[in-house]
Amino acid sequence: MKRIKIVETAFRDAHQSLLATRMRTRDMLPIAEDMDKVGFFSLEAWGGATFDTCIRYLNEDPWERLRKLDEKVKKTPIQMLLRGQNLVGYKHYPDDIVKKFVEKAYENGVDIFRIFDALNDIRNMEYAIKVAKDQGAHVQGTICYTISPYHTLDKYVEFAKELEALECDSVAIKDMAGLISPHDAYELVKALKEETDLLVNLHCHCTSGMTPMSYYAACQAGVDILDTAISPLSWGASQPPTESVVAALKDTPYDTGLDLKKLTQIKKYFEEIREKYKSILDPIAERIDTDVLIYQIPGGMLSNLVAQLKEQDALDRYDDVLKEMPRVRKDMGYPPLVTPTSQIVGIQAVMNVLSGERYKMVSNEVKDYFRGLYGRPPAPLNPEVAAKIIGDQKPIDCRPADILEPQFEKYKREGEKLGIIRKEEDILTFALYPTIAPKFLRGEIEEEPLKPPKEAVPGLAEA
Amino acid sequence: MKRIKIVETAFRDAHQSLLATRMRTRDMLPIAEDMDKVGFFSLEAWGGATFDTCIRYLNEDPWERLRKLDEKVKKTPIQMLLRGQNLVGYKHYPDDIVKKFVEKAYENGVDIFRIFDALNDIRNMEYAIKVAKDQGAHVQGTICYTISPYHTLDKYVEFAKELEALECDSVAIKDMAGLISPHDAYELVKALKEETDLLVNLHCHCTSGMTPMSYYAACQAGVDILDTAISPLSWGASQPPTESVVAALKDTPYDTGLDLKKLTQIKKYFEEIREKYKSILDPIAERIDTDVLIYQIPGGMLSNLVAQLKEQDALDRYDDVLKEMPRVRKDMGYPPLVTPTSQIVGIQAVMNVLSGERYKMVSNEVKDYFRGLYGRPPAPLNPEVAAKIIGDQKPIDCRPADILEPQFEKYKREGEKLGIIRKEEDILTFALYPTIAPKFLRGEIEEEPLKPPKEAVPGLAEA
Ligand SMILES: [Co+2]
Ligand SMILES: [Co+2]
Repeated sequence: MKRIKIVETAFRDAHQSLLATRMRTRDMLPIAEDMDKVGFFSLEAWGGATFDTCIRYLNEDPWERLRKLDEKVKKTPIQMLLRGQNLVGYKHYPDDIVKKFVEKAYENGVDIFRIFDALNDIRNMEYAIKVAKDQGAHVQGTICYTISPYHTLDKYVEFAKELEALECDSVAIKDMAGLISPHDAYELVKALKEETDLLVNLHCHCTSGMTPMSYYAACQAGVDILDTAISPLSWGASQPPTESVVAALKDTPYDTGLDLKKLTQIKKYFEEIREKYKSILDPIAERIDTDVLIYQIPGGMLSNLVAQLKEQDALDRYDDVLKEMPRVRKDMGYPPLVTPTSQIVGIQAVMNVLSGERYKMVSNEVKDYFRGLYGRPPAPLNPEVAAKIIGDQKPIDCRPADILEPQFEKYKREGEKLGIIRKEEDILTFALYPTIAPKFLRGEIEEEPLKPPKEAVPGLAEA
Repeated sequence: MKRIKIVETAFRDAHQSLLATRMRTRDMLPIAEDMDKVGFFSLEAWGGATFDTCIRYLNEDPWERLRKLDEKVKKTPIQMLLRGQNLVGYKHYPDDIVKKFVEKAYENGVDIFRIFDALNDIRNMEYAIKVAKDQGAHVQGTICYTISPYHTLDKYVEFAKELEALECDSVAIKDMAGLISPHDAYELVKALKEETDLLVNLHCHCTSGMTPMSYYAACQAGVDILDTAISPLSWGASQPPTESVVAALKDTPYDTGLDLKKLTQIKKYFEEIREKYKSILDPIAERIDTDVLIYQIPGGMLSNLVAQLKEQDALDRYDDVLKEMPRVRKDMGYPPLVTPTSQIVGIQAVMNVLSGERYKMVSNEVKDYFRGLYGRPPAPLNPEVAAKIIGDQKPIDCRPADILEPQFEKYKREGEKLGIIRKEEDILTFALYPTIAPKFLRGEIEEEPLKPPKEAVPGLAEA
């Protein structure tokens, strides 16, 4: 009998979505062996915003976290979220950095690479996919799910076929804002199952509250893998509760085969963790909000937006910014909103509203975006806006990373000169975060205390 | 096209499940007109534990709440939850009280009566059903859903047919503990649709987290009506979020036709209400817990249990009591756990564990239960336990209310003598709550302040 496989996200997406990515390694290790015994398809435990947060706020070496988890997790594959050519950062890195990073991630314990690009531009994914495949890893190509006149079922299927052609082992539907309805989940999963030979993995956030229904519909359409989070770290901006999904599918053709009693033990542990991190738990992130369906803005972005407007003493413009956001997205050719496009669109919408004239002030990221440096937008750019932003400049039409010079050797030399390199991985940490890494590698970062001030966290909207 | 109808529970079950039934009338009235405009099948707004709480804690006349709501809610039917022959109390009342109560409820504004009996003993429902039908009300017969070797699909269908024979207009599946899985919801709804001509209404609590999936499956099986709660008062021990269900079904054959924008306005109001009642919000009630599936104990009961054990300084026996509960339920012939059986089983389980010998101490309610005074148990009683509790006594086999003397005139005379009767409804309040009502009717109850001590609330597990 076919069994639905479960990816448990407690160690990555769940705490990224609810606890500002702040869970410490020492809070993961005591339960890691128990989680290894459940029989999950994988434990998502690395990548996304965890790398940045480790070195910036937790004084933790992300590579060490990975190794320590790998020591405890013997049977279950460890999965990471990789932002394609952006790796675990916010911009494209040259191929030599991508290669080294993927190799080192694999070497230190990553078994499954979930690889995405914010624009679904396969050129930003293909090199990372190739390197991961070369290691012998399971590679999951990812479709960033969004809704626009240009995001049709056919386009998604076509994209999945391209991922299959690159020898991906599975395809993930990454619904970072919880936009996918049961009906649409059914149609998309069914089409992917019919048109490709890939395992299909549905990854949703509960932001709109529809997700459990969409998961059920996906099962009926033949989905292979579902992402869930153990219940104390579930719901709201996070994934549906693991135990509930397991219980709901028990004794049906979609049975997961997982043991509820084992999960209940693990749940008890995470209830304590939730209590411990209570001061970070954002009540907005905990709730569901169907506004995401009206404005199509991921839940994490909304709380970032509120923080941003408060800082500028302009909370009264909140509604205007909300309405501006879809317009900016449209001008930019309907990018899916996920790291880094969510931040880019969000900041530009704020600028458009607060400056009193649309695109009077433009961020460097938006300029680069219109120059094609982030890749190919899903739909044509608004030509008037493009003219205002980049004038006569012609956007590049090659793979963005093709115009980047190799950097690994440069960072190696520079890092060694600074005396901050003790292992090869440190060069990568330095290359990815050249501003913060030296401080971290010198041991000058102090672990943030556990009752920190609430603040916007980069990458919160990535999901 | 068929549309799924929605019962909004914000004014009754949602705050009973999350806010210990403490929402004030003055917090309902400002939004009542807006809710009237949405197009709900009904607003559940009266009955259950609200009556008791009004006079005991809020110094509010429940009859006045009903009239005031009725003034604001012009288009949408007002629905109440009626505990069959128990009305809104915890024991059987004689027929004359039942008749007067149902008449007065109808007269003051109840349009739809959802009528249940904790044992699914139709003899405890038939009189209330008849009186409500005589008024011209919509009568919803209710199946209390539980899981046991004796609760088969056939039995449920047979019971629904009996309800249909009594001219009920619809049938509710009342899943007070969130036990029903998507598969079982599908099968049960389908059977009820095939075997009866009744409208089928699914009422679930999210306690186990499966409910949104079960609702979706129920739609596929042809369900007519779903109970939901506006999102700030949803999830956990309450119903699934209204907006999410509406959004998920939009543009499908199950479309509710409701407007998400209107719901978003209402949601904003209830976000403030949630904030206002924050001190009452029980974090346990907010979370989901698949332990209910293992122990089959409704979420509200668990928190009552914890409170009870704490009081007796016996929290270390929690696990023993959890395990004893299903055994007591089995001895008692597998009653569904809902008011009042949930309380009766829970208290007896605690006694069995703390006294060191099973049924050494027995509550009066359990004695009455074994004497048949609550009605016919779903399955045979454990004969050894019965012998220990009631010895040679033969349980009654008639309708329990048949042995009750009329009481209305008695309470009328007594109340008038006490000088506490200003309207006919006061006689009913007095008859239902003879201990608390005189204090309330004399104006001696003070409204509980809004930051009350946390305490166990009777009826919390009714759902
Ligand atoms: Co995610
Ligand atoms: Co209920």
